[in-house]
Amino acid sequence: MWDVSDKSPTVRTAVARSFLRARPETIAAIRTGTVPKGDPLPVAKVAAILAAKNTPDIVPYCHPLGLEHIGVEFDVRDDGIETTTTVKTSGKTGVEMEALTAASVAALTLYDMLKQLDMGMSVERIELVEKRGGKSDFARSNEEPSQ
Amino acid sequence: MWDVSDKSPTVRTAVARSFLRARPETIAAIRTGTVPKGDPLPVAKVAAILAAKNTPDIVPYCHPLGLEHIGVEFDVRDDGIETTTTVKTSGKTGVEMEALTAASVAALTLYDMLKQLDMGMSVERIELVEKRGGKSDFARSNEEPSQ
Amino acid sequence: MWDVSDKSPTVRTAVARSFLRARPETIAAIRTGTVPKGDPLPVAKVAAILAAKNTPDIVPYCHPLGLEHIGVEFDVRDDGIETTTTVKTSGKTGVEMEALTAASVAALTLYDMLKQLDMGMSVERIELVEKRGGKSDFARSNEEPSQ
Amino acid sequence: MWDVSDKSPTVRTAVARSFLRARPETIAAIRTGTVPKGDPLPVAKVAAILAAKNTPDIVPYCHPLGLEHIGVEFDVRDDGIETTTTVKTSGKTGVEMEALTAASVAALTLYDMLKQLDMGMSVERIELVEKRGGKSDFARSNEEPSQ
Amino acid sequence: MWDVSDKSPTVRTAVARSFLRARPETIAAIRTGTVPKGDPLPVAKVAAILAAKNTPDIVPYCHPLGLEHIGVEFDVRDDGIETTTTVKTSGKTGVEMEALTAASVAALTLYDMLKQLDMGMSVERIELVEKRGGKSDFARSNEEPSQ
Amino acid sequence: MWDVSDKSPTVRTAVARSFLRARPETIAAIRTGTVPKGDPLPVAKVAAILAAKNTPDIVPYCHPLGLEHIGVEFDVRDDGIETTTTVKTSGKTGVEMEALTAASVAALTLYDMLKQLDMGMSVERIELVEKRGGKSDFARSNEEPSQ
Repeated sequence: MWDVSDKSPTVRTAVARSFLRARPETIAAIRTGTVPKGDPLPVAKVAAILAAKNTPDIVPYCHPLGLEHIGVEFDVRDDGIETTTTVKTSGKTGVEMEALTAASVAALTLYDMLKQLDMGMSVERIELVEKRGGKSDFARSNEEPSQ
Repeated sequence: MWDVSDKSPTVRTAVARSFLRARPETIAAIRTGTVPKGDPLPVAKVAAILAAKNTPDIVPYCHPLGLEHIGVEFDVRDDGIETTTTVKTSGKTGVEMEALTAASVAALTLYDMLKQLDMGMSVERIELVEKRGGKSDFARSNEEPSQ
Repeated sequence: MWDVSDKSPTVRTAVARSFLRARPETIAAIRTGTVPKGDPLPVAKVAAILAAKNTPDIVPYCHPLGLEHIGVEFDVRDDGIETTTTVKTSGKTGVEMEALTAASVAALTLYDMLKQLDMGMSVERIELVEKRGGKSDFARSNEEPSQ
Repeated sequence: MWDVSDKSPTVRTAVARSFLRARPETIAAIRTGTVPKGDPLPVAKVAAILAAKNTPDIVPYCHPLGLEHIGVEFDVRDDGIETTTTVKTSGKTGVEMEALTAASVAALTLYDMLKQLDMGMSVERIELVEKRGGKSDFARSNEEPSQ
Repeated sequence: MWDVSDKSPTVRTAVARSFLRARPETIAAIRTGTVPKGDPLPVAKVAAILAAKNTPDIVPYCHPLGLEHIGVEFDVRDDGIETTTTVKTSGKTGVEMEALTAASVAALTLYDMLKQLDMGMSVERIELVEKRGGKSDFARSNEEPSQ
Repeated sequence: MWDVSDKSPTVRTAVARSFLRARPETIAAIRTGTVPKGDPLPVAKVAAILAAKNTPDIVPYCHPLGLEHIGVEFDVRDDGIETTTTVKTSGKTGVEMEALTAASVAALTLYDMLKQLDMGMSVERIELVEKRGGKSDFARSNEEPSQ
């Protein structure tokens, strides 16, 4: 695990998102409150928050950090559910992995809550939206994927 | 958490995959062994195996299961890395979430190992490939996405 | 940790409950959806389910068991919130500690979600309601506390 | 999870307690060292300390904090066992939940160690005794329950 | 993680031991109950039991198993403390790693409890004593180390 | 858990090592890449890093600390494998236990990866090599064991 002992602690923020593509019928079940396992959104939110805190256990080379804020927002669209996560810390390394892990686990938990309705859903895009603090900032340009 | 006490334990298998899209230079660094943090593949493999075992902690409504096999294979392509995970158990519920969680965590760990080279990578697709055992089988048709 | 290797696996059920006493204003905030941290019930439910699964990590001499059902029900009353948890397994030891741990963690999480409104709440009673399966059954008599 | 990034780190202390009501015969077994599973107090102490450290995993919206002291004291009375926990940190949020979680887990572990003697015990009261540091202090008035 | 789905579940036992070498003064402090942090033995016992249960999280390729017995015994000698651990399961793979992990963690915890008295202690030997059940048995010959 | 709230945070480093004694044939299998479970070194490295971060869960009285560096180096010798671990933090207590736990878990994981070849291997020596920062430094003298 990378040595960060010489870095200075600064406020660091990261925003990530994931998208779980789902059928209109599945989305309708969320909107009408008829998902057999119950409303998936609060379960996915709690799972995402816990995952952000557990990132150093899940991603081996992540530094443990005292997270100061974890936000999880859902956008239930006709073709799927977008999750946006925001993580903040005052520390010596960034919180990109925490935001990405939270977004991934939100999508996985949504899948788990909904899979009785459709096992063919897929998580389509997990990506860092922006990162501030530390040596360099990052902001994803939507128009032009970097790869 | 769903009641599965009346189900019968049977052999259950699930295969999932994820794809981390990356730039050719990033892939070249893996192939030439010049990634600053070290070879990302074995780290991602260990992370995926641990994540499969920890799925009931990560995905709240997952049943705890005694996993009997976890396989993790990487396909390093010019445009990214595909991870395929295979999970087996003899139990009362399936192991789809374990395979999907392992595939997600493999992709997240690859991202973490490579992000010094490019923060703009994205996990493009996490999906169940097939599932056998239990009430019904599932096999993804590649030609025709179910959504 | 007690040796249970000679026991036979049977279906085992345990029901436990906890009661968090709270002021009428606090209860009113739940009912009107105005708790600043958000609806406490789904968060407490997820926390209780995860706690049931993690009981062998939390209570040192508990045997690890493959839980087959975890149910969490809330009764929001004018003077507080009663949580009832039901846990099932097919195993060699009972699931009393899992049900009690889930009920405790539900109450703690409700406290955490509501403490901005009143730090003086207290968890008033955590107890086993009934247990079935294994060598002997247990049912609490409400009229006549056993102590 | 609440944003605390703008708060200042200060020394914060919290004291909590729990009471496990038990029969005189059960208490006598502790005092004479004849509990079949062994002395329950040191096991409950270790469980409480570990639970305090794991509070952010157990109570979903708790902020992770570097705890600097965890104290666990038992008062074995004729009618039960009172556990008092003290937790200290230098951080941006309080440690009430850590003290309460430790007190709860102490009581649960005592129950687990003693349940072969009496399954009818109950945890009667888990409450915050006092909290210092941060925006406001709190001290429970015993004469006059706040609810 | 190795595929064990074709194996048959049988009763499996493993015994391991560790030895923490310590100075006579350190041992005397244990015997007279004057270790500043308190009696190290019950703390090490609880730590060892928890570690046995968490072995699949600690040792990546270990299969998760429902442990049915974990025994921890200490022999406080003039030159150090020997810990012997016994683990039992009815499963498809052995519990050697669980017994070895428990013995290691017992020794580490003893070190931690005693290090204020002497930081120069060392864990001198962690080894499997015997293993029964499964394809082949193993018993260490003390006279003639296998290496 | 000891009260460290009055201490000052300083940079603290600890170095520990372990030695897994193994037969020449076993060492040869590592060197020729013919270990059936795969190359044991990267798996042991990841396990050691995760164990260092999880030390406060594994060793009950350890304070949680934000680790800033974890290094793991292997020396594959003809008679076994020496693991050297280095841990750094800026905190109020030392990281000896983190370095020792990482070294132990590295040795246990190597054992697990190699035990199909020889179950008779033993971990021969886990010890602190040096510690800097805090009230006093420590350096092991190899010529003259302190016990």
